[in-house]
Amino acid sequence: MALLGIDLGGTKLAIAIILKNGEIIHKETVPIGKRTGSDVGLLITEQVVKFLEKGKSEGNTVEAIGISVPGIAHPGTGTTWVPNIEGWEDYPLLEEVKSVSGTIPVSIDSDRACYILGEVWKGNASGCRDAIFLSVGTGIGAGILINGEILRGSNDIAGCIGWMALQRPFSEKYRNCGCFEYYASGEGIAKVTKSDLTDNEEYDGILMHKSIDAITSRDILEAFEKNDSLAVSIIRQCVEFWGMAVANLVSLFNPEKIIFGGGVFGPALPLLPDICEEAKKWAQPVGMKQVTLTGSALKGDAGVYGAGYMALKSISGSKK
Amino acid sequence: MALLGIDLGGTKLAIAIILKNGEIIHKETVPIGKRTGSDVGLLITEQVVKFLEKGKSEGNTVEAIGISVPGIAHPGTGTTWVPNIEGWEDYPLLEEVKSVSGTIPVSIDSDRACYILGEVWKGNASGCRDAIFLSVGTGIGAGILINGEILRGSNDIAGCIGWMALQRPFSEKYRNCGCFEYYASGEGIAKVTKSDLTDNEEYDGILMHKSIDAITSRDILEAFEKNDSLAVSIIRQCVEFWGMAVANLVSLFNPEKIIFGGGVFGPALPLLPDICEEAKKWAQPVGMKQVTLTGSALKGDAGVYGAGYMALKSISGSKK
Repeated sequence: MALLGIDLGGTKLAIAIILKNGEIIHKETVPIGKRTGSDVGLLITEQVVKFLEKGKSEGNTVEAIGISVPGIAHPGTGTTWVPNIEGWEDYPLLEEVKSVSGTIPVSIDSDRACYILGEVWKGNASGCRDAIFLSVGTGIGAGILINGEILRGSNDIAGCIGWMALQRPFSEKYRNCGCFEYYASGEGIAKVTKSDLTDNEEYDGILMHKSIDAITSRDILEAFEKNDSLAVSIIRQCVEFWGMAVANLVSLFNPEKIIFGGGVFGPALPLLPDICEEAKKWAQPVGMKQVTLTGSALKGDAGVYGAGYMALKSISGSKK
Repeated sequence: MALLGIDLGGTKLAIAIILKNGEIIHKETVPIGKRTGSDVGLLITEQVVKFLEKGKSEGNTVEAIGISVPGIAHPGTGTTWVPNIEGWEDYPLLEEVKSVSGTIPVSIDSDRACYILGEVWKGNASGCRDAIFLSVGTGIGAGILINGEILRGSNDIAGCIGWMALQRPFSEKYRNCGCFEYYASGEGIAKVTKSDLTDNEEYDGILMHKSIDAITSRDILEAFEKNDSLAVSIIRQCVEFWGMAVANLVSLFNPEKIIFGGGVFGPALPLLPDICEEAKKWAQPVGMKQVTLTGSALKGDAGVYGAGYMALKSISGSKK
């Protein structure tokens, strides 16, 4: 008996057969390519059919399916909103998957929710009831676990921490992405750097020798390692914002753990002690003593593990 | 059959017999005076005994007791931490009250938790599953309801929103109270004003004619109403901070309602539309459209109502 964990990403679909003890016994990754709308749905249902068959033939019959999506999932209607897939404003994913899964239960949730569930099941938040996954990639989001349950909010859009206000007064440049994301996401770091390169005529460091449009947060973190002056000032600023965000999560949620993940953490993980020092200045001091900051243990597999755990919870009788 | 709702405040104890439909049929307020330590516990148990008798003799036998405390309540141990009462670092309030209440169940929670429960039961958050009470008085705290349950955190100190980081870089003046509380609590507003009065030699407005040490946030809000230049700049700054805090609550929690209460809201309630406009600039836009900002319907009675509702929940079989 096994679980099917599916992680729909921006460019690829990962799908894994997972035993109930958390062991992945088979995993495949399929590129999404140029698919949009119902073709993405079709890719998922084809893979579900294939993996259900595979599980059965190998004696690991799938009992429950979990799906992580890079957007918002509405459990009430079974629809999902995925901004990066054209035609997925209100996509009936649950209905489509159920059409091929028969009586096997299907659960769908946002990637950030699945990330923290994965870390609780098999990663660095093992055993936690109150933990937060701070995902810093192209954008920034938080998967928030409260007393063992995912924080959903009144309309399933809780955890939009990229919109956190941390720097007054308001500036128009925050309007489309949020203040925290503007400064401290992967895309934000690259954007701030490009703007600084354009404004700063005296700088002649490492980043000057890159094509300005191709600069990524990884380049800037590498330049920071080499003590490049511009990269140092930009990353120091990010540490401040990340520290303030941690402080605000601690003061509001009093969590046991905050797990850093996403494409930026990754290479920014050595900054965790500095982020912790910054957070200590701001946060409610008792709560700050009780929290641990750490990186993701599961990296790119957090989504399939979380989807698998969600599937397990759906049949294990424990409260979802 | 009835409930006993008890609200321990900074200067007085309010105690009420409440019918299960929420009607207060008897309420008394007793000053705490100079009592400290176990004398405050004694005052509470004496009042409990008196009100249990009173309920019985009038045909409204008390079935459950709820107590709101101005600090932190630990349901696991039944102890409370109340910074304003000497000797209440880890006070065994539950044990003491149980010693006089016999088999009648007793529940204790923080005032901010009780405020939002009161508003859900009989106030402006009626019927909400996801709502927040933002209490702005001497300090700032938040009572946060998530899917019908109070957010506690891993050690019962969630909701410490006064510590929210909203203005970088860090300043030493935030260290003992938190950044948000420094600027936008009742005490903070008075402190900022006093500091501005000392620094600003040109100002000769209304506030100059008050004794500098006696100035309160109420004086400043009154001077704001009269368009006093210093008061206007201070209150405009507060509106920015309150708006940013609302935005951060919306982006993180996606609540249906945010209720403003405490001593400052109160007189600052006419500023709610301005606070909402400020929040709109910063917050996740979909969540912002789904939230309503409003004042407390219960004012000074939010604590006894919330304590009463907590008592009701403890015996009604609904999940606590």
